[in-house]
Amino acid sequence: MTDAMTEGGSRAQERRGKRDRLISGASQAFYEQGVERTTIADISAASGVPLGNVYYYFKTKDDIVDAVVSTRIAEIESTYAALAERHDAPADRLKALFRSLSEEADMIAQRGCPIGSLCTELSKRVTGPEPHSAKLMQALVDGAEQQFQEMGRSDAHELAVEMIAAYQGTAVLSHATASPELLRREADRVDRWIDDVQPRP
Amino acid sequence: MTDAMTEGGSRAQERRGKRDRLISGASQAFYEQGVERTTIADISAASGVPLGNVYYYFKTKDDIVDAVVSTRIAEIESTYAALAERHDAPADRLKALFRSLSEEADMIAQRGCPIGSLCTELSKRVTGPEPHSAKLMQALVDGAEQQFQEMGRSDAHELAVEMIAAYQGTAVLSHATASPELLRREADRVDRWIDDVQPRP
Repeated sequence: MTDAMTEGGSRAQERRGKRDRLISGASQAFYEQGVERTTIADISAASGVPLGNVYYYFKTKDDIVDAVVSTRIAEIESTYAALAERHDAPADRLKALFRSLSEEADMIAQRGCPIGSLCTELSKRVTGPEPHSAKLMQALVDGAEQQFQEMGRSDAHELAVEMIAAYQGTAVLSHATASPELLRREADRVDRWIDDVQPRP
Repeated sequence: MTDAMTEGGSRAQERRGKRDRLISGASQAFYEQGVERTTIADISAASGVPLGNVYYYFKTKDDIVDAVVSTRIAEIESTYAALAERHDAPADRLKALFRSLSEEADMIAQRGCPIGSLCTELSKRVTGPEPHSAKLMQALVDGAEQQFQEMGRSDAHELAVEMIAAYQGTAVLSHATASPELLRREADRVDRWIDDVQPRP
């Protein structure tokens, strides 16, 4: 390996590091104050990447939004993958998912669901179908649908929509009324609901 | 009646007319493009009230937000009052409410729920409890809770939260994925659910 190659490698690594920090800072700023009110300067401050450098990675705020959405989708997919590794039974995976959401109840009551509120805001920015918010919400539904399919339910899609809607709606109410206990109670209700929809062996 | 009194009366009427038009224009603009992106100039254009006159009625955009929220709450209350007048059975009132929401499915798929998306946006503007969004969402839940109470359910509050959350969540999914059919299917599901929770005579 030559010195030039090593230097090239670490520079690429540094670039990737800064890009990731920008996405993570933007993601947090969008969640805390909304996409509309977040400026490139806010993202620079949240990520610790100098303002002048931001444009090297992203030409516009919309490019940052794209990258944040892709990252959120990847996070959803790896959450479902981790649940599948930890729990054999699909019902246990869904219960664990709701349990982990109810553990975030205080944050969700304060700021809403990171996915749902981002979807709502992105959809308000355009008229007609908004490809990003559709893909984000789809990733949430798809992961749940797969569990109901593995349970052997032929109405897996409808059940997944019902479950994700129940969570999203509870997040909206919990956020609107600053009531984290709504999410904790919903996790208990969904626990019983999953037992009810699970086909008997 | 003197000419001066008539003139005074019609001036007061004109003032009330312009104030109402501003609230209605703001309400529409907030729904279509979000509170954050709506300027006083947008509200002037949407209501047909000249920009210079707006400040006569409202000192700040926050004052307009207050008035829009109060108007939305009054609308929710009169919707429930109208349902109570039209239907004797509380179960029929709730079914009719969901049916009327599913008739707005295309609009909700395009722009979200006018109440839910306003609550989400208002809650993002501050940290901690946001009095407006809490009162708005509470008005929705309270009206539903009263119906479950009249049905004789001791868990009326929990059922009202579950029902409003199901609707709000379906609105979020429907808006995110631009799918009006989700709301129509949800109205059918809620119809059956209301039959299930209704105590047998």
